[in-house]
Amino acid sequence: MERRKIKVVVIGGVAAGPKTAARLRRLNPEAEITIVEKGKVLSYAGCGMPYYVSGDVAESKNLMDTPAGVIRDSLFFLNVKGISVLDRTLAEKIDRKAKTVSVVHLETGESKILPYDKLVLATGGSPIELPIPGKDLNHVFRMWQPEDALSMREFIHQEKPKKAVIIGGGLIGIEMTEALAKQGLQVRVLEMLPLILPGLLDEEIAANLSRYLRLKGVDVRCGTRVTRIEGDDQGNARKVITEKGEVNADMVLIAVGVRPNSRLAKEAGLEIGSIGDIRVNEYLQTNDPDIYAGGDCVRNIHLLTGKPVFAPMGSTANKQGRVIANNIMGYGEKFKGILSTAVVKVFDYNVGKSGLTETQAREAGFEVVTTLVPSSDIPHYYPTKKPLLLKLIADRKTRKLLGMQGVGPGEVVKRIDVLATAMTLGATIDDLPALDLGYAPPYSTAIDIAAHAANVLRNKIDGIAPFLTPREVKEMADRGEDFLLLDVRSPEEYKEKRIEDPRLKLVPLGMLRRRIAEIPRDKNIVTLCKAGLRAYEAQTILAGAGFKDVRVMDGGIEGWPYEVKSDKT
Amino acid sequence: MERRKIKVVVIGGVAAGPKTAARLRRLNPEAEITIVEKGKVLSYAGCGMPYYVSGDVAESKNLMDTPAGVIRDSLFFLNVKGISVLDRTLAEKIDRKAKTVSVVHLETGESKILPYDKLVLATGGSPIELPIPGKDLNHVFRMWQPEDALSMREFIHQEKPKKAVIIGGGLIGIEMTEALAKQGLQVRVLEMLPLILPGLLDEEIAANLSRYLRLKGVDVRCGTRVTRIEGDDQGNARKVITEKGEVNADMVLIAVGVRPNSRLAKEAGLEIGSIGDIRVNEYLQTNDPDIYAGGDCVRNIHLLTGKPVFAPMGSTANKQGRVIANNIMGYGEKFKGILSTAVVKVFDYNVGKSGLTETQAREAGFEVVTTLVPSSDIPHYYPTKKPLLLKLIADRKTRKLLGMQGVGPGEVVKRIDVLATAMTLGATIDDLPALDLGYAPPYSTAIDIAAHAANVLRNKIDGIAPFLTPREVKEMADRGEDFLLLDVRSPEEYKEKRIEDPRLKLVPLGMLRRRIAEIPRDKNIVTLCKAGLRAYEAQTILAGAGFKDVRVMDGGIEGWPYEVKSDKT
Repeated sequence: MERRKIKVVVIGGVAAGPKTAARLRRLNPEAEITIVEKGKVLSYAGCGMPYYVSGDVAESKNLMDTPAGVIRDSLFFLNVKGISVLDRTLAEKIDRKAKTVSVVHLETGESKILPYDKLVLATGGSPIELPIPGKDLNHVFRMWQPEDALSMREFIHQEKPKKAVIIGGGLIGIEMTEALAKQGLQVRVLEMLPLILPGLLDEEIAANLSRYLRLKGVDVRCGTRVTRIEGDDQGNARKVITEKGEVNADMVLIAVGVRPNSRLAKEAGLEIGSIGDIRVNEYLQTNDPDIYAGGDCVRNIHLLTGKPVFAPMGSTANKQGRVIANNIMGYGEKFKGILSTAVVKVFDYNVGKSGLTETQAREAGFEVVTTLVPSSDIPHYYPTKKPLLLKLIADRKTRKLLGMQGVGPGEVVKRIDVLATAMTLGATIDDLPALDLGYAPPYSTAIDIAAHAANVLRNKIDGIAPFLTPREVKEMADRGEDFLLLDVRSPEEYKEKRIEDPRLKLVPLGMLRRRIAEIPRDKNIVTLCKAGLRAYEAQTILAGAGFKDVRVMDGGIEGWPYEVKSDKT
Repeated sequence: MERRKIKVVVIGGVAAGPKTAARLRRLNPEAEITIVEKGKVLSYAGCGMPYYVSGDVAESKNLMDTPAGVIRDSLFFLNVKGISVLDRTLAEKIDRKAKTVSVVHLETGESKILPYDKLVLATGGSPIELPIPGKDLNHVFRMWQPEDALSMREFIHQEKPKKAVIIGGGLIGIEMTEALAKQGLQVRVLEMLPLILPGLLDEEIAANLSRYLRLKGVDVRCGTRVTRIEGDDQGNARKVITEKGEVNADMVLIAVGVRPNSRLAKEAGLEIGSIGDIRVNEYLQTNDPDIYAGGDCVRNIHLLTGKPVFAPMGSTANKQGRVIANNIMGYGEKFKGILSTAVVKVFDYNVGKSGLTETQAREAGFEVVTTLVPSSDIPHYYPTKKPLLLKLIADRKTRKLLGMQGVGPGEVVKRIDVLATAMTLGATIDDLPALDLGYAPPYSTAIDIAAHAANVLRNKIDGIAPFLTPREVKEMADRGEDFLLLDVRSPEEYKEKRIEDPRLKLVPLGMLRRRIAEIPRDKNIVTLCKAGLRAYEAQTILAGAGFKDVRVMDGGIEGWPYEVKSDKT
């Protein structure tokens, strides 16, 4: 085949599709490239939709134009990129023998047969539907296509709803929490699983985020399965019924996940994976070598487990579009995989993760070591400092970093990106503290929190410091074990926030050497402070004084995901 | 030697010294550890001093306390860490045979001989003195120790100076620019070399920063050598005389660099490097195996050249303290090297670099390819978006990333840290676009600017897109070559900012296919837009239409470091 004159049909015009087409045009001025898209606008910013609902993005056209202000429609693609777009057009059938795609125009009903040398499936995903009564009532929304955002914002502006219920505490649900609260709604999130952002965060980080959302007035209810939505006699949603009771609602958003769109591929006899994904090899080629697929309709290899994982993400789709175009031109580029990185801003909190959660790492059979580091994102003396809580997960045997999570008003995403880069390049926890990261007080502490957290992991693995996770301490206490919980903070800090437990004794760190006679030598000791550093110093002091079983509670009271008491109201 | 009972003397109590001592204490409860420090306070935040002068840090004690609010003095070190501190004490002599250090108390004059098993030199650096008349006049400051910051702020508050001259446009000079401007002073920066932040930035990035500083009212004069400072009859500095004229000054800051403090080491017969640094191996050991050195008194290996480089930085000193302690305990940990990463905030701009500059990469013999990418740091539709200009430097042969620089109000430091991590782990430019970085509109574009810049470099190296750097275009124009400079922006953008050149023709990208007959086929063409993307599209269109020599000006008008015209005043 003469690659210069190649005919390429791309099905899907949102992310992977147009990216494939644009890259291909650059590599090959003579290729005949056609995009088939059911909407009017291509390459729209799907990920920006929550910010249109919130009002942060003033006009919907801003989600559809280029940075230079031109709407990305079929005319733009033709004029600027020399790419034909069949808009408002549905692909109905692939004939792999004849190498054609049958398409139909959604408005005129006109049919066409498009011949191809190479076909690209960028058919995306669709929101998962809950099999519950009432899901099709009025004012029950999804958040997937531009029309969803337009109709939701219009509804809010016209009908002034007061109460919103979001079914699903995943990424979209959490982003929409802020969007709806900004529009003045009282927001409830109902999540079936025990934690919000399930599969993305472990207990400590999810608990921190839930606590914050409740502070912001969002009613977060986990472990709450919705059984139906009830409407009034106009067919408008009014109530969401769960296994644990009911809540009123003027509007409902169902955001319980996404599934790959693979009907077309399946009907064409292409291999389909276990979750309905179009199966591709590392060149993003289906089992038909002339058909590629990318974006939300495929699964990806997780770089740390080597196993397929479904993590639909606009960033991944764009990367894959470029790789597909390169491979159509014969460059043989691999798409090696992903880390399931995810970030979300909600009110003033930054939340995110990369790699495996602790739970996932255990399930994958790693010998897991974790640490929990609460810290200021920059030096404590610099006025714009903000707190964050970082969790790192590593493998004891290989010392490889396996995952990380962060939450807080502090700068979280830089640490995510640094550690995602490190994990992609196979870093061990010993590589991290040596990184020559940018240091100046407005940006970082002298030893960045990510490097510090890696050092804590090294101490644990090397047996230099004996640590307990908050969960381990909680379990010891719940089992009724006899130990001393030694809080080495100041009395003021203790009043403000403390673990209420009869085993607890307060001795501020600065007094510990003087008051060491008060510490019982016949008990196991767990030291505790705000963030872990002083508890570590206390452990060093006690170990130096001959105490035998002294362990540090990792992450301090800031990392403690369970109940605390306070003298403040 | 029995490591548990080891006697360790540490000379220097700012960064590497106390870090060594603290880590050692944790590894070894029984070690006898003594820090010798000439000041009263240890581990003070030297890097925070400009922010004390600016007023961002309200009280000087904030630079000297722990996050829990305790001043880090000798009592703190004894109580909390079990480390003896001889404060206000100078180390005078090392006797390597007897393994002792003679010290003298600066106030009482009392002398002592301290025996050691291992000695740690963390003697830091000192500001370089300019050999010019007037350098010792009143109101001529340095910015190195806490007293410098205290006396400068006190002087400003009491004497209300109006005009400040900063001699030296390096990191400290640039940080102090903002600090002094915030205190209401009119600030001039005089830099001897042709660019500010010399050795850290290349021409395009330094020009961008200089332009911004001038907009903020700072008079930046490069290529300006100071010959003397003149005072009035009270001995107060009043004028700074340069080879290009004189400027008035109510106060002067000399910040022309730092040199390692190595007198003690030299007198003890330890090996000294070419810039007066204490020579160490990768275990941070001097040529005497019982003496270690770290922090600003040593040079480091540059990870990309393998050659020693002097880059004093608090972050490096802290890392080295930990490594030294580990090695004293026999862990055999290497400090592999640095990337000369540097970041600085100045007004609302973030500026920084990691790795080699283009100039340094050429000098080191690499086959250099660069790109210049102006971009919004997050999607153009998101309200908090801000611009930044990124430069990447790579090696054509190995495809390794060699360096990067960034400047602008946009988020620069995350990109620095990601790319520093990538360089440390040996990444090629082909690894970067595949990174699974955190993507959500408040944080990043779907393809992050760092990944995009790497893709541009790949295109260049693979011959997919023919680019010219701004310098190459400027040189072609200056040589009087005949070519078409095709600006494909809108007329509005052209009016606002343009390169004034008779070779320039404006054809907005959306019109290019229609107006292609206007483009001469007998001339070489250089396409140009705001940031490079549309110029690249134009190049694709023209190449597709059979034009032979069409090249894209890298970085567009935003990356153009030379003169521009505007119809706006």
